Amino acid sequence: MVNKGSEDASTLDPIFRPRSIAVIGASRKKGSIGRNILHNLIEFEFNGPVFPINPQANVIHSIKCYPSLQDVPDEVDLAIIVVPKSLANKAVEDCGKKGVKGIIMITAGFKEVGGDGLEREREIGKILKKYQMRMVGPNCMGVINTHPDFNLDATFAPSFPAVGNIGFLSQSGALGAAILEHANELNLGISQFVSVGNKLDISGNDIVHYWAQDEQTKVILLYLESFGNPRVFTQLAREIVKKKPIICVKSGRTRAGAKAASSHTGALAGMDVGTHALFEQCGVLRVNTVEELFDLAQAFSRQPIPKGKRVAILTNAGGPGIMATDATVSVGLEMAKFSKDTVSKLREFLSTEASFSNPLDMIASANEEGYFKSLKILLADEGVDAAIVIFVHPVYIDAIGIASSIIKASKTQKKKPVLCVFMGRKNEASGIEELQKAGLPTYLYPESAAIAIAAMEKYHKIKTRKKGKVVTFKDVSPETAEKIFKKVQRDGREMLTDLEVNRVLAAYNIPMPPFTLVKSLEDAVRFTEQKNYPVVLKVISPDVVHKSDVGGVIVDLRDEAELVRGYMKLRENLAKLDPPLEDYEILIQEMVKGGKELILGMTYDPSFGPLIMCGLGGIYVEILKDVNFRIHPITDLDAKEMLENLKGIKLLKGVRGEKGVDLKAVMETLQRLSQLIGDFPVIKEMDMNPFMAFADRKKCMALDARMSIQPAEIEELTGKGTS
Amino acid sequence: MVNKGSEDASTLDPIFRPRSIAVIGASRKKGSIGRNILHNLIEFEFNGPVFPINPQANVIHSIKCYPSLQDVPDEVDLAIIVVPKSLANKAVEDCGKKGVKGIIMITAGFKEVGGDGLEREREIGKILKKYQMRMVGPNCMGVINTHPDFNLDATFAPSFPAVGNIGFLSQSGALGAAILEHANELNLGISQFVSVGNKLDISGNDIVHYWAQDEQTKVILLYLESFGNPRVFTQLAREIVKKKPIICVKSGRTRAGAKAASSHTGALAGMDVGTHALFEQCGVLRVNTVEELFDLAQAFSRQPIPKGKRVAILTNAGGPGIMATDATVSVGLEMAKFSKDTVSKLREFLSTEASFSNPLDMIASANEEGYFKSLKILLADEGVDAAIVIFVHPVYIDAIGIASSIIKASKTQKKKPVLCVFMGRKNEASGIEELQKAGLPTYLYPESAAIAIAAMEKYHKIKTRKKGKVVTFKDVSPETAEKIFKKVQRDGREMLTDLEVNRVLAAYNIPMPPFTLVKSLEDAVRFTEQKNYPVVLKVISPDVVHKSDVGGVIVDLRDEAELVRGYMKLRENLAKLDPPLEDYEILIQEMVKGGKELILGMTYDPSFGPLIMCGLGGIYVEILKDVNFRIHPITDLDAKEMLENLKGIKLLKGVRGEKGVDLKAVMETLQRLSQLIGDFPVIKEMDMNPFMAFADRKKCMALDARMSIQPAEIEELTGKGTS
Repeated sequence: MVNKGSEDASTLDPIFRPRSIAVIGASRKKGSIGRNILHNLIEFEFNGPVFPINPQANVIHSIKCYPSLQDVPDEVDLAIIVVPKSLANKAVEDCGKKGVKGIIMITAGFKEVGGDGLEREREIGKILKKYQMRMVGPNCMGVINTHPDFNLDATFAPSFPAVGNIGFLSQSGALGAAILEHANELNLGISQFVSVGNKLDISGNDIVHYWAQDEQTKVILLYLESFGNPRVFTQLAREIVKKKPIICVKSGRTRAGAKAASSHTGALAGMDVGTHALFEQCGVLRVNTVEELFDLAQAFSRQPIPKGKRVAILTNAGGPGIMATDATVSVGLEMAKFSKDTVSKLREFLSTEASFSNPLDMIASANEEGYFKSLKILLADEGVDAAIVIFVHPVYIDAIGIASSIIKASKTQKKKPVLCVFMGRKNEASGIEELQKAGLPTYLYPESAAIAIAAMEKYHKIKTRKKGKVVTFKDVSPETAEKIFKKVQRDGREMLTDLEVNRVLAAYNIPMPPFTLVKSLEDAVRFTEQKNYPVVLKVISPDVVHKSDVGGVIVDLRDEAELVRGYMKLRENLAKLDPPLEDYEILIQEMVKGGKELILGMTYDPSFGPLIMCGLGGIYVEILKDVNFRIHPITDLDAKEMLENLKGIKLLKGVRGEKGVDLKAVMETLQRLSQLIGDFPVIKEMDMNPFMAFADRKKCMALDARMSIQPAEIEELTGKGTS
Repeated sequence: MVNKGSEDASTLDPIFRPRSIAVIGASRKKGSIGRNILHNLIEFEFNGPVFPINPQANVIHSIKCYPSLQDVPDEVDLAIIVVPKSLANKAVEDCGKKGVKGIIMITAGFKEVGGDGLEREREIGKILKKYQMRMVGPNCMGVINTHPDFNLDATFAPSFPAVGNIGFLSQSGALGAAILEHANELNLGISQFVSVGNKLDISGNDIVHYWAQDEQTKVILLYLESFGNPRVFTQLAREIVKKKPIICVKSGRTRAGAKAASSHTGALAGMDVGTHALFEQCGVLRVNTVEELFDLAQAFSRQPIPKGKRVAILTNAGGPGIMATDATVSVGLEMAKFSKDTVSKLREFLSTEASFSNPLDMIASANEEGYFKSLKILLADEGVDAAIVIFVHPVYIDAIGIASSIIKASKTQKKKPVLCVFMGRKNEASGIEELQKAGLPTYLYPESAAIAIAAMEKYHKIKTRKKGKVVTFKDVSPETAEKIFKKVQRDGREMLTDLEVNRVLAAYNIPMPPFTLVKSLEDAVRFTEQKNYPVVLKVISPDVVHKSDVGGVIVDLRDEAELVRGYMKLRENLAKLDPPLEDYEILIQEMVKGGKELILGMTYDPSFGPLIMCGLGGIYVEILKDVNFRIHPITDLDAKEMLENLKGIKLLKGVRGEKGVDLKAVMETLQRLSQLIGDFPVIKEMDMNPFMAFADRKKCMALDARMSIQPAEIEELTGKGTS
């Protein structure tokens, strides 16, 4: 990113709101990009002059053509560059000289092809900086702003967009074009569109920031393959989603997909766990497919957000009603229970053969009046938050009439979303176009409607959720931790010893059970004279990572006899290893009994930085992978969500009448961990496994923990080494 | 079901292959069902005479009309009844008298409306039986057979079907019509179609059986809301799927959906777990939505089944390639690794800017030659089992030419499926229709293609999987079990005591640890003189279902002192209950240590009969619900699958170098349980929780088990009681 720009979004105005445009590389050749760009600008009736630039032509598309930008007599706000890549850098320089303020670089063959492409792209960056210009691209398919003051279609996409309230950003040009096409088919209107290409200057974050302030844009759709700066995105998105929903397809979800993504864009795609955490934390709605993106876009751009999850289903056929019910329940919504009043009003005019529970099946004979009255009554029921209206076309019914009834009924109120499912015929008499144009999302199958309502309901929660706080605990001693880390670095180690981990955690008030290192059986017996049985013996060795794998943990020794046998057994186990373990110490501590095993920890992601983790512990973490991640730093709300969204949360809350564990103690530990990580970026990885949680907060503690840090910088090491 | 008929499928011929047809209730009124049925028969050019019957008309649709069936001078094979419900029974009787062999009853208002509708439907059943006629319906939308010898469209659906190889059965008339419409849009051809309606005579099983023998039908699609006879379906489907795939949408997946389904059809829908088990056992491919049904139908009806899961992706745009990769990996398929030979062949002609790993991104400049050569080379690679070809339409490329190249390349071999994704424009120049007509499934987004290949690959495994056997163990003693059950019934109980369960299981060679019931602490101490510490104490009481909930289990007592304290603690716990537990005994047994907890059991489903269950045990079964069900009786293969498909199977196979448990011992126990259930249908419910599994098969046993049986029939009880 050359110009940061997020501070002053107005620097993007010359690109989205230009007063005049030059097309450098405009072409007479039909079917060429240079021709299509010009054609789209003119046909979409851009509200200002367009100047084609091409030294080999006098006129293109009936417009006077200039041999070079310098020959244009007027001022030029925006230049669209479509020249071959070898001429691109010169064109940018020309723009600078002419005083152009914004550039859209369609031309490809830069960073994405590697080699000297990378170098040429860097060069462009320097020119932009020199002349204080902003640029979209290179390697993109352009920009659209449908606002009637501009009527800007600066793309070479084959169709014109409908005017609407959706801002759509695509990191893939090809997909962007396909999506624009599909949006048109669904009568979905957009406010602005950007294909960001290589994001040399203007980033996704810049665009999102720009749209946050754009009055025309009510819904933000993103197709992303990678994040430029996830931290900036997080800050931006957290604010924006309070006002406008952000819906995102992030591809490269799977490892193989991420590999493909990084070969495509040259950007290092983060592992999906980071993306997931980021979206959860900042309230971005994620969808897996472009199809779902459309399902949601239809609903969000046209309907009010429901206040709850109770869905009424109105249908004229049983089968689709059942499918809609399945879909509704599957996505976590609830079937509304109709009030007695509602049912008695419905009985007044519907056939006795109708089914008056939810779904309300009016049977095939349902007519315009039936749809109008029923929908109006359902929407007036206080137990209904949203409605799905299904219509399967019987031959003898006028679908357009039904569509009008639904439109009329939906307008009897303004707070509850109405989504339609019109199955079967998709022709001029199907009523679908009428519904869509009237702002009613209309789908082919009930699943789409259910998915959309579920997302809206989730967004309602996001909009109204409390803002979390990053808590700073005062009762910590960073000095103690720092001393330990320095010692480890001086020793040239990365792993901390058990004792060191224990002390670092203690410095942040994360308790571990007290222990003693013993050199002999006699020492061990002496330990029990001060402490209580049962006790545990553990091996401590730099050569042992998973103690229990090598028989290095002996638990639940209840008396002296068991301790003696246990001690001997432990030494035997270690002597039997191949090669036998020699460099070790033995730790003794009181046994912690009962409690629920958790794993709390941190791992480092190259894109997202430190990720804090919380999961069900023990071997279950490996098998069932019931873990949640959040990007550092975490708020109190994050800590709560990452714990409460565990699949096994019931286990922690207590089953079969047993007391639940003190969840607040666990949340506090997560936040203390987050603070420790923030204080010491040197920490590379750490986990407490298990962290034992109890109903009594005083008993909650980490039984075992590991931590590794970055090695010291060479000079520092040397400095210390020679002192 | 009046006539069982599955034995002799040819009795359905008069319905699907009639030589002449009467339409009873044919109407002149445009838009009416009676008119549309006649219109469809004529316009689809049925290969025989059609006789309209209506006392109020002389001619309908230019065809001579008869006042009654009896007035028709020729023989009539098939009668389609469209009269008002009050005249329907008379019409059926008329058919019988005329010697009609098959009836399609469109008329509604029978079982589905309850009350006297139920009675009128029963009456029709009797008439059918009397005259040996077969009938589809009532309350259905008809039948189609596109075979050119018949050209039968006996529905009132608004469009005509394309000729093809798909048999499609719908339990919902409305949905059936919508699906036929959609199939047409996708250029999907059908062989036969049935809307089964209320299934008074001809059931879904009859139709499936009929299609198994129909040469035209290669793929069977089902939309079901309930099962008439799941056991017959299981037997049929197991055989048929070896030859033809069966793909099914079963709605009523959720509890709320099932409730809606049963109010709709009057049939008792099974809980979804039974449906899931049934489909897994007999190899039916289940999809959740009609959309998926189409995704699969396109692929199965037109492409070969792949031999493996390695997918090659060919694209002209990066973004869609990544999305396809995500989708491929998400559904459990693998990304193919191209051979060196493949890559070097591709390098010969593709742009150096292309990406030569998988996905193969030919970039936007890819032309017809590029698509043809690349696809041909990928299909020839031995490491590729299937291909997804993506095309995003750049403005300057002729999509129809690309489509032709793909068609040509796909024909260079016959064993690997090729599925296309054409994004964006969907107009006459998009090439999509050409591809679909050439038999290449073509989708709008990559996810559909991935889902379809995954289903095909699953079907490959189903087709080639070994046939399981229901094993009968000889070393069992049903006599012992019978005696115990009779005693329980005589006592007027349903729950067996611990001791009784222990003996029943022992009679089927399912071991439990030996135990003794003790009346005093002295008895308990005496037990330990014969056996080894540690021991366990448990309460046995008809008033206690979950022993540990009431503090009724004390484990791991290692010596006499601990036993004494444990015994006292147990009695204390029970005395503290509110009200104090009085009616109980105390059981003592050796403690079983280590092992992995499983839960094995049986529950009774009203539709499917006994379901055998296997899951991860302990409290995890309640929280994580990692359980699998199969319908009784289970084969050895079923036992294997239900164990190996557990999410936590790794836990049982051993993690971190520990030995896995003896899975075969668990499988055998499941099969012994199945045999026990089969021998005694009186068993209502049972579970072994936990069943402890060890590496050593001799140590595998049920630690705790519960079993309940049906009460005896009144007369039997009395009989026994007075004897």
